[in-house]
Amino acid sequence: MKYYGGIDLGGTNSKIGILDENGNIIYSTIVKTESNLGYKETIKKLSDCLKVGLDENKINYDDFISLGMGVPGPTVNKSTVIMWANFPWPENLNLANEFENQLSKPVYIDNDVNIITLGELWVGAAKGYKNVLGMAIGTGIGGAVVVNGEIISGKNGASGEIGHIPLEKKGRLCGCGKRGCFEAYASATGIERIAKDRLEVNKNNMLYNLTKDRDIEAKDVFECAKQGDKLSMDIVEETAEYLAMGIGTALSILDSDIVVMGGGVALAGEFLTDKIKKYLPDYLMTSIEKNVEIKIAELGNNAGIYGAAYLAMQSKK
Amino acid sequence: MKYYGGIDLGGTNSKIGILDENGNIIYSTIVKTESNLGYKETIKKLSDCLKVGLDENKINYDDFISLGMGVPGPTVNKSTVIMWANFPWPENLNLANEFENQLSKPVYIDNDVNIITLGELWVGAAKGYKNVLGMAIGTGIGGAVVVNGEIISGKNGASGEIGHIPLEKKGRLCGCGKRGCFEAYASATGIERIAKDRLEVNKNNMLYNLTKDRDIEAKDVFECAKQGDKLSMDIVEETAEYLAMGIGTALSILDSDIVVMGGGVALAGEFLTDKIKKYLPDYLMTSIEKNVEIKIAELGNNAGIYGAAYLAMQSKK
Repeated sequence: MKYYGGIDLGGTNSKIGILDENGNIIYSTIVKTESNLGYKETIKKLSDCLKVGLDENKINYDDFISLGMGVPGPTVNKSTVIMWANFPWPENLNLANEFENQLSKPVYIDNDVNIITLGELWVGAAKGYKNVLGMAIGTGIGGAVVVNGEIISGKNGASGEIGHIPLEKKGRLCGCGKRGCFEAYASATGIERIAKDRLEVNKNNMLYNLTKDRDIEAKDVFECAKQGDKLSMDIVEETAEYLAMGIGTALSILDSDIVVMGGGVALAGEFLTDKIKKYLPDYLMTSIEKNVEIKIAELGNNAGIYGAAYLAMQSKK
Repeated sequence: MKYYGGIDLGGTNSKIGILDENGNIIYSTIVKTESNLGYKETIKKLSDCLKVGLDENKINYDDFISLGMGVPGPTVNKSTVIMWANFPWPENLNLANEFENQLSKPVYIDNDVNIITLGELWVGAAKGYKNVLGMAIGTGIGGAVVVNGEIISGKNGASGEIGHIPLEKKGRLCGCGKRGCFEAYASATGIERIAKDRLEVNKNNMLYNLTKDRDIEAKDVFECAKQGDKLSMDIVEETAEYLAMGIGTALSILDSDIVVMGGGVALAGEFLTDKIKKYLPDYLMTSIEKNVEIKIAELGNNAGIYGAAYLAMQSKK
């Protein structure tokens, strides 16, 4: 049996997994990333943890083929991270090389949303498909484009940046500095901003009563909408329409086999996807729209290690 | 030397070419398509023309490897045309099979905008690139997505349908029946509609004087704008902004190496692309926008036979 390592490098914690070639998790553990100590320290620690896992499971080092890793930033050549979201690590860092020096095995790196989507492709919601649009709808909206079973990374490591599709000319300000971006409307953050704004002027509703003593979260809006709160229902309808517009845009270009939605907002499940499908005919040609399939991601917190191990398995140096 | 056939199947005329493996056109001719006589007649005629070309150039039939063809409609599996734009031919027609029966050589088929983009990739503006966004801006806006040197066709043969990206919620009506599509604004037809509409209420301008006795064409608008006509300049600026929005959208998803613009509107050249680049920072993340390259297509009317021959050359059964 062949084994692959998968690491999900996170801002606070990192998840380390060892998987066999059939997609079974043989070992997994979580460690503090401590990026403030510098990338060499983090790589050393993660490599040591991997070796412990191999030892504990009596896996011969020759049967450990390669390592994959998902990182929070755009990457190119499955090796180089162009810039880091919230890590004090250098730009254009060839992290694969650094890891290879520790492990003496091939190492492959890609953006975390890309990696999650590869996980869903291997053993999750997109299993059996070859062309996938992956979406992670949380603080922002991340995206991943799989073509013929492989991620496309893009010239600048930035393919799949669907959160920054411009949906409204001169629209809401986005965290990226531009206006009208998809994620300014339909991310959890976007939903929370819209809700907060409306509750300023309308306090006669369930959402206000639920959240008056604390911060609003997107899931509160979905919860109240499910219970029939008019203000919350309106926000969910508008969110679903923007999601239809964003998905319609991406599918007009990609005509993917399937859309897999993950992240906190996707936890709203069919309550949300049914509404998206209702609006989709307004934003997508009939020839594509009639065959659209939208699924909710299945792998949860393990998606990263599944996807990273699969990247390793499908790559060659 | 190996030789490949390339056919550009058009509504009125079809172009037939024989190219060598280095991309030289050895033979080319134009015949009436006469689709009204049925697909079997057209295929027979095109096959006969190809054979004449091979004979005239004393090309051994063993050295003629395969045939590629661009068709006006969405295709799947490089063989089957899902539906025809203005041809009285059956839906889901496996045209490759029909041709193979005539020629006893492998035949590969793809959508005409995809084929033109492959031509530019082989010997034109995108030579040397692997990931290309092709655009054909004329009556509508067609698109083509090349990833790792190959066209992606999509689940429904409809990938690259960038003309139907929704740019405006509840915007202008498009020929497809939806509202707010990219091509309703920035195609030649879109530009002409906008110009006609404005000339209804403003006749004190160069564009009105030039076109008062005939139909407006998009190129009149560009011509008058170049000469400083204020009304025309405004339309060109607005068109460039929509083009920036559409290109920004596509590149947010694809992060392609290069954009190649063809079709009548692209003949405006740098006068137009310079304006598009001016608006691009409003619609595309800095990390992608700073490296954007937009080129005008180079192959003109021969793009179709170049691309079709290249499809044949890069494909295997």
